[in-house]
Amino acid sequence: MTDEIKSKICEVKDFPKPGIGFKDITPVVEDASCYKRVIDLMTDWAKTKDPQLIAAIESRGFLFGGPVAHRLGLGMTVIRKKGKLPRKVVSVRAPNEYAVEHFEMHADSVEHGERVLIIDDLIATGSSSVSAIELVQKLGGKVVGFAALVDLAFLKGIENIKKAHPDVEIFSIVTFEE
Amino acid sequence: MTDEIKSKICEVKDFPKPGIGFKDITPVVEDASCYKRVIDLMTDWAKTKDPQLIAAIESRGFLFGGPVAHRLGLGMTVIRKKGKLPRKVVSVRAPNEYAVEHFEMHADSVEHGERVLIIDDLIATGSSSVSAIELVQKLGGKVVGFAALVDLAFLKGIENIKKAHPDVEIFSIVTFEE
Repeated sequence: MTDEIKSKICEVKDFPKPGIGFKDITPVVEDASCYKRVIDLMTDWAKTKDPQLIAAIESRGFLFGGPVAHRLGLGMTVIRKKGKLPRKVVSVRAPNEYAVEHFEMHADSVEHGERVLIIDDLIATGSSSVSAIELVQKLGGKVVGFAALVDLAFLKGIENIKKAHPDVEIFSIVTFEE
Repeated sequence: MTDEIKSKICEVKDFPKPGIGFKDITPVVEDASCYKRVIDLMTDWAKTKDPQLIAAIESRGFLFGGPVAHRLGLGMTVIRKKGKLPRKVVSVRAPNEYAVEHFEMHADSVEHGERVLIIDDLIATGSSSVSAIELVQKLGGKVVGFAALVDLAFLKGIENIKKAHPDVEIFSIVTFEE
């Protein structure tokens, strides 16, 4: 089944800019049984971390965070790019493989000591994952896990996250070695 | 319960630009019981339309579309802003109350005659809803419903959608009269 999920992910060359091989996960979400399976696997793993809140990273992370939060009976908070959230925010620099961005969260979106599980679609170099973890921590949350559908292992993202945050457990469903 | 959901939505004045009173729905999604209730209500309504696919509008529409698709055992396709989708797209002009944008969908994301239910967070003037409906139709889909958490009734969005597409049924949970 994981092979079937992987087979749905197609690589688009030179998107969003020359030299990048973009992994397009939309066909996974469009396929009812693959989408369900991804949510089942993420939910099963997330449950073992006993989170109190899901935090999803804009915008493809929302595709997975919402259903996982729903399955666990939790609320979900959003990690968005600069300028999208209307109230008082806390922000961090969030460089990724395409550009330097900033992530923001509403300042009141996490309670002190709250157990937060972060969800995104994909781990590349890990630098935006690290930024998201640091943002939740800045708000006083305890990051109990980070889940993504895809790990681009050749970019060593999980290694990089582990180096920065050895206590955060990481889960991915599909791994690409190149 | 609908009153409780409504009470969570706060108005932020002059966001994203002067003169706009932005309705912030993130506190609804952060609250586990309100989020669950919204998904329950949308799912119950969506079920009566017998959709084969959910289409969610970037990016707050993803917060609701994902869980509803999951509950109904369906796949979800995404309606995104220009330049975000990596493969061949079909696009429409999507003016909203802030700016003129374009919505895009992957050209292969809807099958001919497929029953599609569109989900967004909010109906304002209805013009971006109309654009989304026309985009799904352009791809050959039959739009069997449009669901949103919020209707800003004073902007007459539902009237405007009905004028353009009298056959599309519309559902909203919370209405603001001003």
